[in-house]
Amino acid sequence: MTSNVHAPAAAGLTPLFAPRGIAVVGASRDPGKLGAALARSLSGFDGHLALVNSRDGGMHDSVRSATADGPVDLAMICVPAPSCAGVLAEAAEAGVRAAVVCGGGFAEAGGPGPEYQRALAEVVAGCGIRLLGPNTSGFLAPHGGLTASFVPGAARVEPGKVAVVAASGGVNHALAFLLTEAGHGVSLAVGLGNGVDVTAPDVLDYLASDPATGAVALHVESVHDGPRLVDAVRRLVPTRPVVALVVGQHDVGDFAASHTGALATSWRTTRAALSQAGAVVVSDERELVDAVGALAVTRARPCPEPAVGVVTAQAGPGLLLLDDLRGRRIPVPGLASSTQDSLAELLPPLTFQRNPVDTGRPSPGLGRVLTTVAADPAVDVIAGYALHEPDAVDLVAAAREARASGVPLVLGVGGTGAEVTTCRRALIEAGIAVANDPRGVAAAAAALVTDARARAVTAAPRTEGPVPVTVTGAHDEDQAKTLLGRLGIATPRRRACADRAEAHAALKELGVPVAVKLLDARLLHKTEIGGVHLGVATAEDLDAALDALEAVHARRFLVEEMAAPGVDLVLGVRRDPVFGPIVLCGLGGTTAEALADVAIRLAPVPPDEAAAMPGELAGHALLEGWRGGPVLAPLALGEAAAALGDLLDANPALDEIEVNPLRLTADGLVALDAVVITREADDAQPDH
Amino acid sequence: MTSNVHAPAAAGLTPLFAPRGIAVVGASRDPGKLGAALARSLSGFDGHLALVNSRDGGMHDSVRSATADGPVDLAMICVPAPSCAGVLAEAAEAGVRAAVVCGGGFAEAGGPGPEYQRALAEVVAGCGIRLLGPNTSGFLAPHGGLTASFVPGAARVEPGKVAVVAASGGVNHALAFLLTEAGHGVSLAVGLGNGVDVTAPDVLDYLASDPATGAVALHVESVHDGPRLVDAVRRLVPTRPVVALVVGQHDVGDFAASHTGALATSWRTTRAALSQAGAVVVSDERELVDAVGALAVTRARPCPEPAVGVVTAQAGPGLLLLDDLRGRRIPVPGLASSTQDSLAELLPPLTFQRNPVDTGRPSPGLGRVLTTVAADPAVDVIAGYALHEPDAVDLVAAAREARASGVPLVLGVGGTGAEVTTCRRALIEAGIAVANDPRGVAAAAAALVTDARARAVTAAPRTEGPVPVTVTGAHDEDQAKTLLGRLGIATPRRRACADRAEAHAALKELGVPVAVKLLDARLLHKTEIGGVHLGVATAEDLDAALDALEAVHARRFLVEEMAAPGVDLVLGVRRDPVFGPIVLCGLGGTTAEALADVAIRLAPVPPDEAAAMPGELAGHALLEGWRGGPVLAPLALGEAAAALGDLLDANPALDEIEVNPLRLTADGLVALDAVVITREADDAQPDH
Repeated sequence: MTSNVHAPAAAGLTPLFAPRGIAVVGASRDPGKLGAALARSLSGFDGHLALVNSRDGGMHDSVRSATADGPVDLAMICVPAPSCAGVLAEAAEAGVRAAVVCGGGFAEAGGPGPEYQRALAEVVAGCGIRLLGPNTSGFLAPHGGLTASFVPGAARVEPGKVAVVAASGGVNHALAFLLTEAGHGVSLAVGLGNGVDVTAPDVLDYLASDPATGAVALHVESVHDGPRLVDAVRRLVPTRPVVALVVGQHDVGDFAASHTGALATSWRTTRAALSQAGAVVVSDERELVDAVGALAVTRARPCPEPAVGVVTAQAGPGLLLLDDLRGRRIPVPGLASSTQDSLAELLPPLTFQRNPVDTGRPSPGLGRVLTTVAADPAVDVIAGYALHEPDAVDLVAAAREARASGVPLVLGVGGTGAEVTTCRRALIEAGIAVANDPRGVAAAAAALVTDARARAVTAAPRTEGPVPVTVTGAHDEDQAKTLLGRLGIATPRRRACADRAEAHAALKELGVPVAVKLLDARLLHKTEIGGVHLGVATAEDLDAALDALEAVHARRFLVEEMAAPGVDLVLGVRRDPVFGPIVLCGLGGTTAEALADVAIRLAPVPPDEAAAMPGELAGHALLEGWRGGPVLAPLALGEAAAALGDLLDANPALDEIEVNPLRLTADGLVALDAVVITREADDAQPDH
Repeated sequence: MTSNVHAPAAAGLTPLFAPRGIAVVGASRDPGKLGAALARSLSGFDGHLALVNSRDGGMHDSVRSATADGPVDLAMICVPAPSCAGVLAEAAEAGVRAAVVCGGGFAEAGGPGPEYQRALAEVVAGCGIRLLGPNTSGFLAPHGGLTASFVPGAARVEPGKVAVVAASGGVNHALAFLLTEAGHGVSLAVGLGNGVDVTAPDVLDYLASDPATGAVALHVESVHDGPRLVDAVRRLVPTRPVVALVVGQHDVGDFAASHTGALATSWRTTRAALSQAGAVVVSDERELVDAVGALAVTRARPCPEPAVGVVTAQAGPGLLLLDDLRGRRIPVPGLASSTQDSLAELLPPLTFQRNPVDTGRPSPGLGRVLTTVAADPAVDVIAGYALHEPDAVDLVAAAREARASGVPLVLGVGGTGAEVTTCRRALIEAGIAVANDPRGVAAAAAALVTDARARAVTAAPRTEGPVPVTVTGAHDEDQAKTLLGRLGIATPRRRACADRAEAHAALKELGVPVAVKLLDARLLHKTEIGGVHLGVATAEDLDAALDALEAVHARRFLVEEMAAPGVDLVLGVRRDPVFGPIVLCGLGGTTAEALADVAIRLAPVPPDEAAAMPGELAGHALLEGWRGGPVLAPLALGEAAAALGDLLDANPALDEIEVNPLRLTADGLVALDAVVITREADDAQPDH
């Protein structure tokens, strides 16, 4: 290998996904072999196709010989794992700029597999050829008739506007088939496999300039470079919405490790990071299909709190749809009285017209009903459902009429048969999102809402920059709270006491009752060892508490005013091994902990964005005046979260801060305890 | 109306769903009219079809005249609401035994609608004609070519083994179409509409002897007679599995009321009741289709804790499937080492073979792999996924081979096109459940597991019958706890004290610390008014507590030993307005309350069945030794729940008991507080 055709940084993916010519290396006449299956799949390709097998006289004996007949940009390598690196190098030398290795037997396998994979990586590093795989079933580019996959039916995947970027070749095909069956079709479908060279961020960057792609379905199993993935999604989302499905909510570790390596970060953090980058994050492959199918043809305008107008031709399915939207916490507000007046003129009396709008059996006036709802000032997206009843209404004409208003429309069409399929496809052609059932309509409408909301998060500069604070050394509770105070987070009045006399003085000064705690930067779990005494009201009580603290070897004491009752939260920052600094917010108490009910953001995060975290908690109602309790000002939480995130981001020596509990009282948030963990915690003292 | 052809109780639904002849009353030549649409739909019916319209000389002028040409069992009534009752009476007099009123304008509408509905009910009561509707789009019986629906595409619904019993005509059609698209087809699909006469239990009873029906999809919006519905499901489930979708998880009340009347009970209680009766309860219409499609062709043998073997031809979709099954808490246990040894001989090395079993690319040996997994002693259901790769394996042959073992099999087949559709249908024909994607496989496998588990719940007689206890009158906390004690529920040692001297004596007797509480049957919420003092350890503390209690007008006191720490539950019984006595179990604390995390059973319930309640809670981990805490013995909870349920069931004067908290300690469950509410609470004293 002497030539170095392309510098890695400059090499794009056009030779891979839109090659002028393809060589199948290891082509075969044995129909059961991979090389034969690939050659069959590629027969629909309209560029130069060359079959290479040095042991078959009817084929080219080398890649270089294959280039004699026409340009070869892409080599599909179908040889056993031990031979792949050599073939890859040979292809690069022959001027081939991209390759796919479909076979397995590399890092996902044991034995010599990882060594074979390292050899591939070395060839890539040396010559800059772009490599998809190994351990992938390839890719599909139906607009160009290019089926670079050994899966026989893959050529039946229809062209469309959705690109698939899947960690797994199997999922890539599964999604491409589902997108075809749902009428959405595919622009490009890529299975990344082991990702030696081409990874998800590369493909996302490529798609940013792919005119055939309207939206991207992203399937994530594990993330190796979190910031790079986040940046790629962030760059792509303004022009191509991204819908992401992250595997691994539950314990699938053993099997996952056998497949693509252990999941290095948490499912929750990965979802939070993708969501923060602007992706719509879904929970299963069906919602993925509905969401990305919708976003490939239509998008709502950016809006902080978009709302949905529901129009249904049948009350029963409309009720399913409404119930589903409510479960997703998508606003379905009452329509303006002027809208209701207009609807009353269009619809039979006695149907429900406030939102949902129940049209009764659909009539030719459906287009005007949809248009009227679209014109309501509160409506940003219309979610509709109708059985296919061509004798009653032309659904395509009605939807087109409403679509002209500019408000995006999702329409569920119930029915079966070719006529219904034709209707659904005509709707998609007209820029109307389509689903087959109420749940699909809800998933698609929710995706439009989530996408519009994500784009409304302003990247406006902060009015006040982060407070410049340097954190080093070990922190006892008093020092930790002083640090929080500098960030603007309220803490109780307190005195750090070096002896019993100071503690008694503090009791008089602060008023009763007080909390009395052991003060020692080396002990992070005071409560477990009896280091916390609450409700100390008299000098005698104080002495008893101090006796007990001395019995567990306390030498210094914290005397602190007792906080008002309220609802306890936990707010923390830490470093995720894949995504870097993150902020976590949850409710306090073991129930919330057992449910893992936590909201996450990558740091730094602006306060207004962090302010949305408490609303994402399953138990959010507890922060909204539950049973007469205090009401959280989300921005106050957002400011505290942002300040902690900024602090972590700016201080490499800082590993973690946990404020637990951060109590919501009638007077706002108060940090009742806090732990600060720094790298050199045992070596130095804080400098503040 | 003088004749009374059928007594209501004796009249079955065969004349309705399998009529020898049909009269369309209000038939029309105007293609836009309901009567014309119905006549078109019914043109495929192979029995006697008569069109009746007294104003059209080409049609019969009356139902009686229509009977002259042949038998008329069913009248499809397409006249305006005000005329329906008269037409119905006329049909009954002519010997017609069943009718459908499709049109709206009855109880679901305002104005005179309810009056028109009452008139229909009177005709039914008078002559026993069976009436479906009004306000329904009818029914479909595709095996007989009978499309009794005005929805144009309804005749394209294909015959199959799934019966649909839907509250709403729209949902009935939507489900019938989805079942057709998924390849399952329909045996009978009924939309109940306003349900003046024929309701869900009637149709369920009819289906028990319908040879075409393999399983039933039940869609529930509101329940009028809970016990009757539960009994019908319980009767049907041994021969026909029932999968139920209940609407109304979220606040959809306004719209629902406009549609079929307010939901009289809760979504949770309805689901719990149906589940207890043996139905598989699902969360959306897609899972309904997957679950009922599977159960229509196969069922696992009854088993208390069925487990799933996962076999996948592609690791990525297999990972989605495993993650989904874990989320449903379906056991996917490791396979026996003998099974793994056998698999190692069938599969390439290095694939994962413990469960899931990853076959690598499918080969002709797939049938043996499936059969081997089916033979594992831990496996009750197989969940598989494969892309359609006919050059690699004949999926139908492989699945048939495994099916012969008797273990039910769900197979997801990824692909698109006619060949794939044919493959899926052939699998269904062979008694193999089929889905299109991993989520569908998980939903179907979970349905087979849930159904097998439900049938394993023994209806064995209780070893000890309920304790016969009569409850009347008001109960203070001491009396309530004495009642619990008689039921076998542990309570703390305590003394009811009439004065301060008795309280001081109790303190000495019980040992410190104690809880001191106000004792008054009229005050249900002691804590809120300062009626509870915990951790009272000295005579001075006790005096302070008694002072405080007297300040809130306490005249009697409860002095009680303090309970050990632990995890608090809430256990209660009350009367549901629709289903009658129910038992509720949840975790204590506001977080669990805010999440409405509660398990429900109808009472009476046997202890072993009630023992499953805590495992259903989202926060169940807290009861399983969370952070070194106590571990719940589920049967202990089940016995307490069953005893309370029996008590409520046997005591008409008892309205409600709430044990809150019921604390799980290292020594078991202890009731720390309890409220007993009786009807005559203010009038009488308890008799025990």
